[in-house]
Amino acid sequence: MEAAVAYDNSYDRSQPVTDQVLAQLFTEARTRNAWSDRPVSEDIIRQLYELTKFGPTQANTTPARFVFVTSDAGKERLIPLMAEGNQAKTRQAPVAVIVAYDVNFHDTMHKLFPHAPGAKDWFPEREGRREAALKNSSLQAGYLISAARALGLDVGPMTGIDFAGLKQEFFPEGDVEVNMVINLGYGTDENLFGRSPRLSFEEAARIV
Amino acid sequence: MEAAVAYDNSYDRSQPVTDQVLAQLFTEARTRNAWSDRPVSEDIIRQLYELTKFGPTQANTTPARFVFVTSDAGKERLIPLMAEGNQAKTRQAPVAVIVAYDVNFHDTMHKLFPHAPGAKDWFPEREGRREAALKNSSLQAGYLISAARALGLDVGPMTGIDFAGLKQEFFPEGDVEVNMVINLGYGTDENLFGRSPRLSFEEAARIV
Repeated sequence: MEAAVAYDNSYDRSQPVTDQVLAQLFTEARTRNAWSDRPVSEDIIRQLYELTKFGPTQANTTPARFVFVTSDAGKERLIPLMAEGNQAKTRQAPVAVIVAYDVNFHDTMHKLFPHAPGAKDWFPEREGRREAALKNSSLQAGYLISAARALGLDVGPMTGIDFAGLKQEFFPEGDVEVNMVINLGYGTDENLFGRSPRLSFEEAARIV
Repeated sequence: MEAAVAYDNSYDRSQPVTDQVLAQLFTEARTRNAWSDRPVSEDIIRQLYELTKFGPTQANTTPARFVFVTSDAGKERLIPLMAEGNQAKTRQAPVAVIVAYDVNFHDTMHKLFPHAPGAKDWFPEREGRREAALKNSSLQAGYLISAARALGLDVGPMTGIDFAGLKQEFFPEGDVEVNMVINLGYGTDENLFGRSPRLSFEEAARIV
Protein backbone atom coordinates (compact mmCIF):
# COMPACT_ATOMS: atom_id res chain seq x y z
CA MET A 1 0.00 0.00 0.00
CA GLU A 2 2.73 2.48 0.93
CA ALA A 3 4.20 2.23 -2.54
CA ALA A 4 0.84 3.06 -4.11
CA VAL A 5 0.53 6.36 -2.27
CA ALA A 6 2.44 8.93 -4.29
CA TYR A 7 2.14 11.45 -1.50
CA ASP A 8 2.45 15.09 -2.40
CA ASN A 9 3.67 17.10 0.58
CA SER A 10 2.50 20.32 -1.01
CA TYR A 11 -1.12 19.14 -0.79
CA ASP A 12 -3.12 21.05 1.80
CA ARG A 13 -4.85 18.51 4.01
CA SER A 14 -6.65 21.19 6.04
CA GLN A 15 -9.33 21.66 3.37
CA PRO A 16 -12.49 19.60 2.92
CA VAL A 17 -12.46 16.83 0.35
CA THR A 18 -14.85 17.23 -2.58
CA ASP A 19 -18.60 16.83 -2.26
CA GLN A 20 -18.33 13.71 -4.41
CA VAL A 21 -16.03 12.11 -1.85
CA LEU A 22 -18.30 13.17 1.04
CA ALA A 23 -21.18 11.54 -0.85
CA GLN A 24 -19.19 8.33 -1.41
CA LEU A 25 -18.14 8.10 2.25
CA PHE A 26 -21.18 9.43 4.07
CA THR A 27 -24.17 11.16 2.57
CA GLU A 28 -24.97 8.72 -0.28
CA ALA A 29 -23.42 5.56 1.20
CA ARG A 30 -26.01 2.93 2.13
CA THR A 31 -26.02 -0.36 3.99
CA ARG A 32 -26.39 -2.94 1.23
CA ASN A 33 -28.40 -6.15 1.33
CA ALA A 34 -27.58 -7.49 -2.14
CA TRP A 35 -24.34 -7.73 -4.07
CA SER A 36 -23.19 -7.74 -7.68
CA ASP A 37 -20.88 -10.52 -8.84
CA ARG A 38 -17.95 -8.13 -9.18
CA PRO A 39 -15.19 -9.75 -7.11
CA VAL A 40 -13.06 -8.15 -4.36
CA SER A 41 -9.40 -8.97 -4.84
CA GLU A 42 -6.98 -9.96 -2.10
CA ASP A 43 -5.09 -6.79 -2.99
CA ILE A 44 -8.14 -4.67 -2.04
CA ILE A 45 -8.55 -6.63 1.21
CA ARG A 46 -4.94 -5.93 2.13
CA GLN A 47 -5.25 -2.24 1.19
CA LEU A 48 -8.31 -2.08 3.41
CA TYR A 49 -6.33 -3.37 6.37
CA GLU A 50 -3.40 -1.04 5.62
CA LEU A 51 -5.75 1.97 5.82
CA THR A 52 -7.77 0.74 8.82
CA LYS A 53 -4.70 0.03 10.95
CA PHE A 54 -3.73 3.70 11.13
CA GLY A 55 -6.92 4.85 12.87
CA PRO A 56 -6.20 6.07 16.42
CA THR A 57 -7.04 3.82 19.38
CA GLN A 58 -6.52 4.11 23.16
CA ALA A 59 -2.75 3.83 23.75
CA ASN A 60 -2.47 2.36 20.24
CA THR A 61 -3.97 -0.89 21.51
CA THR A 62 -5.57 -1.69 18.10
CA PRO A 63 -7.34 -4.76 19.56
CA ALA A 64 -9.43 -5.59 16.46
CA ARG A 65 -8.79 -8.88 14.72
CA PHE A 66 -10.22 -9.62 11.30
CA VAL A 67 -11.17 -12.79 9.45
CA PHE A 68 -11.95 -12.08 5.81
CA VAL A 69 -14.23 -14.91 4.71
CA THR A 70 -14.04 -15.25 0.92
CA SER A 71 -14.04 -18.97 0.10
CA ASP A 72 -17.03 -21.28 -0.17
CA ALA A 73 -15.53 -23.39 2.61
CA GLY A 74 -15.25 -20.34 4.86
CA LYS A 75 -18.82 -19.29 4.09
CA GLU A 76 -20.08 -22.76 5.03
CA ARG A 77 -18.50 -22.33 8.46
CA LEU A 78 -19.82 -18.77 8.89
CA ILE A 79 -23.36 -18.76 7.53
CA PRO A 80 -24.98 -21.34 9.84
CA LEU A 81 -23.88 -19.11 12.74
CA MET A 82 -25.84 -16.09 11.49
CA ALA A 83 -29.48 -15.07 11.94
CA GLU A 84 -31.60 -16.46 9.14
CA GLY A 85 -32.26 -13.00 7.72
CA ASN A 86 -28.51 -12.44 7.27
CA GLN A 87 -27.68 -15.73 5.57
CA ALA A 88 -28.64 -15.25 1.90
CA LYS A 89 -26.97 -11.85 1.57
CA THR A 90 -23.82 -13.08 3.25
CA ARG A 91 -23.67 -16.03 0.84
CA GLN A 92 -23.95 -13.54 -2.05
CA ALA A 93 -21.36 -11.05 -0.78
CA PRO A 94 -17.83 -11.56 -2.15
CA VAL A 95 -16.34 -10.97 1.33
CA ALA A 96 -17.73 -11.17 4.85
CA VAL A 97 -15.28 -9.88 7.44
CA ILE A 98 -15.63 -11.07 11.01
CA VAL A 99 -14.53 -8.19 13.25
CA ALA A 100 -13.34 -9.55 16.58
CA TYR A 101 -11.30 -8.25 19.51
CA ASP A 102 -8.41 -9.75 21.40
CA VAL A 103 -9.11 -9.47 25.12
CA ASN A 104 -5.41 -10.18 25.66
CA PHE A 105 -4.32 -7.24 23.50
CA HIS A 106 -2.14 -6.14 26.40
CA ASP A 107 0.32 -8.88 25.43
CA THR A 108 1.19 -6.84 22.31
CA MET A 109 1.69 -3.49 24.10
CA HIS A 110 5.50 -3.86 24.18
CA LYS A 111 5.35 -3.81 20.39
CA LEU A 112 2.56 -1.27 19.90
CA PHE A 113 3.45 1.26 22.62
CA PRO A 114 7.20 0.74 23.00
CA HIS A 115 7.93 4.11 24.64
CA ALA A 116 5.88 3.09 27.73
CA PRO A 117 7.38 -0.21 28.91
CA GLY A 118 4.78 -0.57 31.69
CA ALA A 119 1.77 -0.19 29.37
CA LYS A 120 0.83 -3.85 29.67
CA ASP A 121 0.14 -3.31 33.37
CA TRP A 122 -2.45 -0.60 32.65
CA PHE A 123 -4.90 -3.40 31.83
CA PRO A 124 -4.64 -5.88 34.72
CA GLU A 125 -8.20 -7.26 34.88
CA ARG A 126 -10.02 -9.25 32.23
CA GLU A 127 -13.32 -7.35 32.39
CA GLY A 128 -11.59 -3.98 32.05
CA ARG A 129 -9.59 -5.32 29.11
CA ARG A 130 -12.68 -6.81 27.51
CA GLU A 131 -14.53 -3.51 27.69
CA ALA A 132 -11.53 -1.55 26.35
CA ALA A 133 -11.16 -4.08 23.51
CA LEU A 134 -14.88 -3.92 22.68
CA LYS A 135 -14.75 -0.11 22.60
CA ASN A 136 -11.57 0.22 20.59
CA SER A 137 -12.41 -2.56 18.12
CA SER A 138 -15.76 -0.82 17.49
CA LEU A 139 -13.85 2.39 16.79
CA GLN A 140 -11.70 0.38 14.38
CA ALA A 141 -14.83 -1.03 12.74
CA GLY A 142 -15.81 2.59 12.09
CA TYR A 143 -12.45 3.15 10.41
CA LEU A 144 -12.82 -0.06 8.39
CA ILE A 145 -16.28 0.95 7.15
CA SER A 146 -15.00 4.42 6.20
CA ALA A 147 -11.92 2.94 4.51
CA ALA A 148 -13.99 0.38 2.60
CA ARG A 149 -16.16 3.15 1.20
CA ALA A 150 -13.05 5.19 0.35
CA LEU A 151 -11.84 2.20 -1.68
CA GLY A 152 -15.12 2.13 -3.59
CA LEU A 153 -16.64 -0.80 -1.69
CA ASP A 154 -20.08 -0.99 -0.14
CA VAL A 155 -20.63 -2.42 3.32
CA GLY A 156 -23.35 -4.33 5.15
CA PRO A 157 -22.63 -4.56 8.91
CA MET A 158 -24.56 -7.15 10.95
CA THR A 159 -24.89 -8.08 14.61
CA GLY A 160 -27.55 -10.75 14.07
CA ILE A 161 -24.97 -13.49 14.66
CA ASP A 162 -24.15 -16.27 17.11
CA PHE A 163 -21.32 -14.57 18.97
CA ALA A 164 -20.36 -17.60 21.06
CA GLY A 165 -20.59 -19.93 18.09
CA LEU A 166 -18.40 -17.69 15.92
CA LYS A 167 -15.82 -17.41 18.70
CA GLN A 168 -15.66 -21.19 18.97
CA GLU A 169 -15.52 -21.73 15.19
CA PHE A 170 -13.04 -19.01 14.21
CA PHE A 171 -11.13 -18.20 17.42
CA PRO A 172 -10.95 -21.47 19.38
CA GLU A 173 -7.65 -20.45 20.98
CA GLY A 174 -6.67 -17.44 23.06
CA ASP A 175 -9.36 -15.06 24.32
CA VAL A 176 -10.86 -13.39 21.28
CA GLU A 177 -14.50 -12.21 21.24
CA VAL A 178 -16.59 -11.44 18.16
CA ASN A 179 -17.92 -7.89 17.64
CA MET A 180 -19.80 -7.94 14.31
CA VAL A 181 -19.73 -9.27 10.74
CA ILE A 182 -19.53 -6.86 7.80
CA ASN A 183 -20.34 -7.86 4.24
CA LEU A 184 -18.09 -6.18 1.66
CA GLY A 185 -18.48 -5.90 -2.07
CA TYR A 186 -20.20 -3.85 -4.72
CA GLY A 187 -23.83 -3.48 -3.72
CA THR A 188 -26.94 -3.46 -5.85
CA ASP A 189 -30.23 -1.70 -5.10
CA GLU A 190 -32.07 -4.99 -4.54
CA ASN A 191 -33.69 -5.17 -1.07
CA LEU A 192 -32.37 -1.69 -0.35
CA PHE A 193 -34.38 -0.22 2.52
CA GLY A 194 -35.53 3.36 2.54
CA ARG A 195 -33.09 5.35 4.62
CA SER A 196 -34.16 5.42 8.26
CA PRO A 197 -34.46 8.80 9.99
CA ARG A 198 -31.59 10.25 12.01
CA LEU A 199 -31.66 12.48 15.07
CA SER A 200 -31.32 16.18 14.36
CA PHE A 201 -28.28 18.10 15.59
CA GLU A 202 -30.41 19.53 18.39
CA GLU A 203 -31.58 16.07 19.48
CA ALA A 204 -28.10 14.51 19.61
CA ALA A 205 -25.69 17.39 20.17
CA ARG A 206 -25.11 20.77 21.72
CA ILE A 207 -22.43 23.45 21.66
CA VAL A 208 -21.31 24.94 24.97
CA MET B 1 -25.30 20.37 4.64
CA GLU B 2 -27.62 18.75 2.12
CA ALA B 3 -27.71 21.96 0.15
CA ALA B 4 -23.92 22.05 -0.05
CA VAL B 5 -23.70 18.62 -1.69
CA ALA B 6 -24.21 19.17 -5.40
CA TYR B 7 -24.48 15.45 -5.95
CA ASP B 8 -23.69 14.14 -9.40
CA ASN B 9 -25.53 10.87 -10.03
CA SER B 10 -23.23 10.04 -12.92
CA TYR B 11 -20.27 9.80 -10.54
CA ASP B 12 -19.04 6.24 -10.05
CA ARG B 13 -18.78 5.60 -6.32
CA SER B 14 -17.37 2.11 -6.81
CA GLN B 15 -13.85 3.42 -7.50
CA PRO B 16 -11.22 4.34 -4.90
CA VAL B 17 -10.85 7.98 -3.97
CA THR B 18 -7.52 9.60 -4.83
CA ASP B 19 -4.31 8.83 -2.98
CA GLN B 20 -4.38 12.39 -1.65
CA VAL B 21 -7.72 11.74 0.01
CA LEU B 22 -6.52 8.40 1.42
CA ALA B 23 -3.52 10.28 2.83
CA GLN B 24 -5.74 12.96 4.38
CA LEU B 25 -8.09 10.40 5.95
CA PHE B 26 -5.74 7.59 6.90
CA THR B 27 -2.12 7.20 5.91
CA GLU B 28 -0.83 10.69 6.75
CA ALA B 29 -3.40 11.65 9.40
CA ARG B 30 -1.93 11.91 12.87
CA THR B 31 -3.22 12.33 16.40
CA ARG B 32 -2.39 15.95 17.24
CA ASN B 33 -1.21 17.32 20.57
CA ALA B 34 -0.97 21.02 19.65
CA TRP B 35 -3.24 23.32 17.73
CA SER B 36 -2.96 26.42 15.54
CA ASP B 37 -5.18 29.39 16.36
CA ARG B 38 -7.25 28.86 13.20
CA PRO B 39 -10.85 28.68 14.48
CA VAL B 40 -13.46 26.01 13.77
CA SER B 41 -16.79 27.57 12.84
CA GLU B 42 -20.18 26.44 14.07
CA ASP B 43 -20.95 25.68 10.43
CA ILE B 44 -18.11 23.12 10.34
CA ILE B 45 -19.32 21.59 13.62
CA ARG B 46 -22.80 21.16 12.19
CA GLN B 47 -21.45 19.74 8.92
CA LEU B 48 -19.45 17.26 10.99
CA TYR B 49 -22.59 16.05 12.72
CA GLU B 50 -24.52 15.87 9.44
CA LEU B 51 -21.87 13.52 8.01
CA THR B 52 -21.38 11.46 11.19
CA LYS B 53 -25.08 10.77 11.66
CA PHE B 54 -25.30 8.70 8.47
CA GLY B 55 -22.82 6.04 9.59
CA PRO B 56 -24.53 2.67 10.08
CA THR B 57 -25.30 1.44 13.60
CA GLN B 58 -27.10 -1.60 15.01
CA ALA B 59 -30.82 -1.19 14.15
CA ASN B 60 -30.07 2.51 13.50
CA THR B 61 -29.80 3.07 17.25
CA THR B 62 -27.25 5.92 16.81
CA PRO B 63 -26.78 6.19 20.61
CA ALA B 64 -23.90 8.71 20.52
CA ARG B 65 -24.50 12.11 22.06
CA PHE B 66 -22.07 14.99 21.50
CA VAL B 67 -21.16 18.10 23.47
CA PHE B 68 -18.98 20.42 21.41
CA VAL B 69 -17.05 22.48 23.95
CA THR B 70 -15.90 25.71 22.32
CA SER B 71 -16.33 28.52 24.88
CA ASP B 72 -13.96 29.49 27.67
CA ALA B 73 -16.76 28.78 30.14
CA GLY B 74 -17.24 25.29 28.71
CA LYS B 75 -13.51 24.61 28.82
CA GLU B 76 -13.40 25.61 32.49
CA ARG B 77 -16.02 22.95 33.24
CA LEU B 78 -14.26 20.29 31.12
CA ILE B 79 -10.55 20.68 31.74
CA PRO B 80 -10.42 20.02 35.51
CA LEU B 81 -12.05 16.64 34.74
CA MET B 82 -9.22 15.51 32.46
CA ALA B 83 -5.89 13.86 33.20
CA GLU B 84 -3.18 16.46 33.73
CA GLY B 85 -1.39 15.45 30.53
CA ASN B 86 -4.52 16.22 28.49
CA GLN B 87 -5.30 19.64 29.97
CA ALA B 88 -2.99 22.07 28.16
CA LYS B 89 -3.70 20.70 24.69
CA THR B 90 -7.45 20.69 25.33
CA ARG B 91 -7.26 24.34 26.43
CA GLN B 92 -5.46 25.14 23.16
CA ALA B 93 -7.80 23.21 20.85
CA PRO B 94 -10.61 25.28 19.30
CA VAL B 95 -13.12 22.47 19.97
CA ALA B 96 -13.18 19.53 22.36
CA VAL B 97 -16.10 17.20 21.70
CA ILE B 98 -17.35 14.99 24.50
CA VAL B 99 -18.60 11.77 22.90
CA ALA B 100 -21.17 10.14 25.16
CA TYR B 101 -23.84 7.46 24.81
CA ASP B 102 -27.45 7.40 25.84
CA VAL B 103 -28.13 4.15 27.70
CA ASN B 104 -31.83 4.86 27.16
CA PHE B 105 -31.45 5.09 23.38
CA HIS B 106 -34.30 2.58 23.12
CA ASP B 107 -36.71 5.41 23.93
CA THR B 108 -35.95 6.88 20.46
CA MET B 109 -36.41 3.63 18.49
CA HIS B 110 -39.97 4.51 17.45
CA LYS B 111 -38.45 7.47 15.61
CA LEU B 112 -35.23 5.84 14.36
CA PHE B 113 -36.55 2.41 13.35
CA PRO B 114 -40.21 3.13 12.56
CA HIS B 115 -40.80 0.02 10.43
CA ALA B 116 -40.28 -2.24 13.48
CA PRO B 117 -42.71 -0.97 16.14
CA GLY B 118 -41.45 -3.46 18.74
CA ALA B 119 -37.79 -2.44 18.41
CA LYS B 120 -37.74 -0.76 21.79
CA ASP B 121 -38.38 -4.14 23.41
CA TRP B 122 -35.25 -5.64 21.88
CA PHE B 123 -33.25 -3.86 24.59
CA PRO B 124 -35.03 -4.65 27.87
CA GLU B 125 -32.12 -4.68 30.35
CA ARG B 126 -29.89 -1.79 31.29
CA GLU B 127 -26.57 -3.66 31.09
CA GLY B 128 -27.35 -4.99 27.61
CA ARG B 129 -28.34 -1.50 26.52
CA ARG B 130 -25.24 0.02 28.07
CA GLU B 131 -22.98 -2.39 26.21
CA ALA B 132 -24.84 -1.86 22.90
CA ALA B 133 -24.62 1.90 23.38
CA LEU B 134 -20.90 1.74 24.22
CA LYS B 135 -20.24 -0.35 21.12
CA ASN B 136 -22.34 1.68 18.72
CA SER B 137 -21.22 5.06 20.02
CA SER B 138 -17.60 3.92 19.56
CA LEU B 139 -18.44 2.99 15.98
CA GLN B 140 -19.91 6.49 15.62
CA ALA B 141 -16.74 7.99 17.09
CA GLY B 142 -14.90 6.22 14.25
CA TYR B 143 -17.22 7.89 11.76
CA LEU B 144 -16.78 11.27 13.47
CA ILE B 145 -12.98 10.99 13.32
CA SER B 146 -13.10 9.99 9.64
CA ALA B 147 -15.59 12.79 8.87
CA ALA B 148 -13.50 15.38 10.72
CA ARG B 149 -10.48 14.48 8.64
CA ALA B 150 -12.59 14.57 5.47
CA LEU B 151 -13.53 18.15 6.42
CA GLY B 152 -9.86 19.08 6.77
CA LEU B 153 -9.76 18.95 10.55
CA ASP B 154 -7.22 17.15 12.72
CA VAL B 155 -8.28 15.11 15.74
CA GLY B 156 -6.85 14.24 19.14
CA PRO B 157 -8.93 11.53 20.88
CA MET B 158 -8.44 11.03 24.63
CA THR B 159 -9.64 8.59 27.27
CA GLY B 160 -7.56 10.05 30.10
CA ILE B 161 -10.65 11.66 31.61
CA ASP B 162 -12.85 11.49 34.71
CA PHE B 163 -15.78 9.58 33.21
CA ALA B 164 -18.02 9.86 36.28
CA GLY B 165 -17.17 13.53 36.78
CA LEU B 166 -17.93 14.38 33.14
CA LYS B 167 -21.23 12.51 33.33
CA GLN B 168 -22.21 14.51 36.41
CA GLU B 169 -21.07 17.84 34.92
CA PHE B 170 -22.43 17.55 31.38
CA PHE B 171 -25.18 14.91 31.61
CA PRO B 172 -26.72 15.28 35.09
CA GLU B 173 -30.10 14.05 33.85
CA GLY B 174 -31.15 10.85 32.11
CA ASP B 175 -28.71 7.95 31.82
CA VAL B 176 -25.91 9.11 29.57
CA GLU B 177 -22.34 7.75 29.96
CA VAL B 178 -19.15 9.35 28.62
CA ASN B 179 -17.08 7.44 26.04
CA MET B 180 -14.15 9.74 25.14
CA VAL B 181 -13.16 13.35 24.45
CA ILE B 182 -11.79 14.34 21.03
CA ASN B 183 -9.95 17.57 20.39
CA LEU B 184 -10.71 19.10 16.99
CA GLY B 185 -8.93 21.83 15.10
CA TYR B 186 -6.00 22.41 12.81
CA GLY B 187 -2.99 20.70 14.34
CA THR B 188 0.63 21.74 14.43
CA ASP B 189 3.69 19.49 14.61
CA GLU B 190 4.49 20.60 18.17
CA ASN B 191 4.67 17.62 20.57
CA LEU B 192 3.88 15.31 17.68
CA PHE B 193 4.93 11.80 18.66
CA GLY B 194 6.68 9.49 16.25
CA ARG B 195 4.09 7.17 14.78
CA SER B 196 3.74 4.04 16.88
CA PRO B 197 4.04 0.65 15.16
CA ARG B 198 0.98 -1.22 13.93
CA LEU B 199 0.35 -4.96 13.68
CA SER B 200 1.04 -6.46 10.27
CA PHE B 201 -1.81 -7.95 8.24
CA GLU B 202 -0.63 -11.42 9.23
CA GLU B 203 -0.64 -10.51 12.93
CA ALA B 204 -4.15 -9.03 12.97
CA ALA B 205 -5.98 -10.66 10.08
CA ARG B 206 -6.42 -13.73 7.93
CA ILE B 207 -8.30 -14.71 4.79
CA VAL B 208 -10.25 -17.95 4.82
